[in-house]
Amino acid sequence: MDENEKKLQEKFIQLKKYLDKGDKKRFRKTYLDMHFYDQSTFYLTLNKDERLSIYTILEPDEMGDMFDTLEDDLPEIPEYLNEMNLTYASQMLNDMYDDNAADILEHLDKVEIERFLGQMPRADANNLRGLLHYDTETAGGIMTTDYVMFHEEETAQEAISNLKKFAETAETIYYLYVLDNHDDLVGVMSLRDLIVLDDNAVLKDNMNSDIITVNVDADQAEVAKVFRDYEFLAVPVVDHSNQMVGIVTVDDVIEVIDDESLQDYSGLAGVSIDETVQDNPLKAASKRLPWLITLLLLSMITATLINHYESLLAEASILAVFISTITGTAGNAGTQSLAVAVRRLAVEEIDRSEFFKLVVKEFLTGFITGVVTGASVLLLVGFWKHNFILGMVIGLAMCAAITVANLAGSLIPMLMSSFGFDPAVASGPFISTLSDLTSVLIYFSIAGMFLQSFVGA
Amino acid sequence: MDENEKKLQEKFIQLKKYLDKGDKKRFRKTYLDMHFYDQSTFYLTLNKDERLSIYTILEPDEMGDMFDTLEDDLPEIPEYLNEMNLTYASQMLNDMYDDNAADILEHLDKVEIERFLGQMPRADANNLRGLLHYDTETAGGIMTTDYVMFHEEETAQEAISNLKKFAETAETIYYLYVLDNHDDLVGVMSLRDLIVLDDNAVLKDNMNSDIITVNVDADQAEVAKVFRDYEFLAVPVVDHSNQMVGIVTVDDVIEVIDDESLQDYSGLAGVSIDETVQDNPLKAASKRLPWLITLLLLSMITATLINHYESLLAEASILAVFISTITGTAGNAGTQSLAVAVRRLAVEEIDRSEFFKLVVKEFLTGFITGVVTGASVLLLVGFWKHNFILGMVIGLAMCAAITVANLAGSLIPMLMSSFGFDPAVASGPFISTLSDLTSVLIYFSIAGMFLQSFVGA
Repeated sequence: MDENEKKLQEKFIQLKKYLDKGDKKRFRKTYLDMHFYDQSTFYLTLNKDERLSIYTILEPDEMGDMFDTLEDDLPEIPEYLNEMNLTYASQMLNDMYDDNAADILEHLDKVEIERFLGQMPRADANNLRGLLHYDTETAGGIMTTDYVMFHEEETAQEAISNLKKFAETAETIYYLYVLDNHDDLVGVMSLRDLIVLDDNAVLKDNMNSDIITVNVDADQAEVAKVFRDYEFLAVPVVDHSNQMVGIVTVDDVIEVIDDESLQDYSGLAGVSIDETVQDNPLKAASKRLPWLITLLLLSMITATLINHYESLLAEASILAVFISTITGTAGNAGTQSLAVAVRRLAVEEIDRSEFFKLVVKEFLTGFITGVVTGASVLLLVGFWKHNFILGMVIGLAMCAAITVANLAGSLIPMLMSSFGFDPAVASGPFISTLSDLTSVLIYFSIAGMFLQSFVGA
Repeated sequence: MDENEKKLQEKFIQLKKYLDKGDKKRFRKTYLDMHFYDQSTFYLTLNKDERLSIYTILEPDEMGDMFDTLEDDLPEIPEYLNEMNLTYASQMLNDMYDDNAADILEHLDKVEIERFLGQMPRADANNLRGLLHYDTETAGGIMTTDYVMFHEEETAQEAISNLKKFAETAETIYYLYVLDNHDDLVGVMSLRDLIVLDDNAVLKDNMNSDIITVNVDADQAEVAKVFRDYEFLAVPVVDHSNQMVGIVTVDDVIEVIDDESLQDYSGLAGVSIDETVQDNPLKAASKRLPWLITLLLLSMITATLINHYESLLAEASILAVFISTITGTAGNAGTQSLAVAVRRLAVEEIDRSEFFKLVVKEFLTGFITGVVTGASVLLLVGFWKHNFILGMVIGLAMCAAITVANLAGSLIPMLMSSFGFDPAVASGPFISTLSDLTSVLIYFSIAGMFLQSFVGA
């Protein structure tokens, strides 16, 4: 525990004392002086009675500031909302940034959502309904409508004084969006640009009219790319008629980047990691089993294939010794190739000509790694068993198996992506189980051809 | 290509025309109106002659704005710097944000670095030398010293008017750092907080004195965690005597998050993905081969083990049929367990008691998945081969192999982490190759015990 954490723990103990003694005034002072995230850490340590009593101490908007920093998919959130007085909860949701409120509501059922929305002013409720309507993983799903806008004819001085009003509600006041008479977005300006202007300068003459926007339906990964490239703190979101409907802010993009990388990572491992961290063994097992059993069935096909070659195995039981070496190594190569392909698909757009080039490249990479690995295993087996024909059979099989595994590792995610599926679903375990099958087929075909030579040698 | 890209392509064509015709004035206007990132995209399309001519059109600070957005590890950067006039290049580096300039210099050798630093004012050169001294992946390695600071006795009005001076050079002006007479950091304030203050309000009375800082030696992953939790746009960095030495801004943290997740992902696949995207097949193969050959050697141990059981295999060649099913399935389970463990280690600090709990949990999860998968394979083999004793042997072996693989998948990264190694290095391919070995050992031991029963059945 470092210095910061220690100080925080002491504050938490103090806060609980105030709560026990009913010292509302001191509680408010200490609590409200903390960062919102620390407030939320404190809140999560409370039991139900303690929570019920802080709802009477804090105003809904103060509670909302803290709820803005809570993870929206925290499983306890519906419970928290239901233990609050309905008016209090609705007011709190209404006082939150609308993107965060929508993220929370998304985890409730329709009836519950309407219970809360019914208590809000109609315009606010409709605004939230609008946000709930967008897919979670699109620009619309992560945007807020609480942004700062000015008319293009306003002067710097007017803008700065109006900004003070926005400072209460807008999610960021550091980017200002400039509209014309038709409410079309015609310019963007940073507060940094604004602050150095002369008082009488007109926004129109000083704004940046080369505006980078994202479409409301754009995938969240695309939105993240804009932030990475341009290093913005916020980006305007427009609908199909190019009307501005909201902004995405950088804090939400950090969540998106975490989400996306976790999805890729989980995909590669064939397990949904985000859900298993807090689960008990039974729940964790129930989440991992579907993939395992599916892959088990696929590997049973491999078993049938080996079974088909049983007479070959009976004649040369030495062949069994190298099954796992060949399937294992080809599987490892396939996993490498898969990871490179999925990553590339995540960061680039790949058109048809690129696609072909990449698959050829991966084929060649597979062939080169196959030749080197095959030659190594030829020597290893040759010297070990004093049988270089057997070594050649194993080496050839390994070379071919690795080449095929590399090809599969890149081709499968690329095909999936071009048919509109998420390539990250083609997991490492899937590729290596599939590659077991092709490896065994290659191995026994080659062994069959040379059977007389190496058994006789 | 979408609308934005099309417009950009047209601008690029226009810019090249101006460059060919030597129309400096029009070139400057069009170029400087673009976003810095678009400027850099344009710059990267130029050949050497074109680049040499834009160095005569643009001022060093204008070139620096663009260089601020270039990837610091772009292999061509040393070439670009060397083709510039030395004074021009030094001036440009000096005009850049110091963290970005340091990131670029880091990729040069000492002699080259001193050539550029020698042309700068001594204080600026020393500042950069100071930054170069920190490890790349620490707070010091990603921080900038271009931040906004005020004295605690200043009023809001004074601060805002002073802010205009900072707006030229500071990397962000949205967070203001408040110092006392001893230059100690005593408060933080956002520009949002400042802008709503009355003109005569004193900073001291309105700043936030509950300051979250990071230590200059803190790992970059730790810094990223602070940004995730608190949703800051910048965080102050302090040295061991708690003196403020710089700030880390959110754009650098996005790079850190990308870096860290790429490292985890690459680790899981046993390949360094960041390096292979642009490589030719030969280079890609040379990067993948070290892991593959290492794992091949490990899998040869498994082969020796199977070889040891050759007499068993000769008696019951049916055993060979299920080798790949057992090793494959256990490898898949081990990969899942590894991914969960590595991810958990990345997001949480785990102490000794937690460690034990997690390993027990993973053991139980492995056992449950093992029992279910083992029972499935018992039935599959039993019905297929009309031999439930054989089915039981395979099922038992699979259950035990999965349990052990799960245990290894969680125990190995945790042990690595507690001995101070990066757990992400324990790759999926490593765990599955290791698990091949234990699976084979388990399989043949169990099969040996029941040999008479299932061969006789």
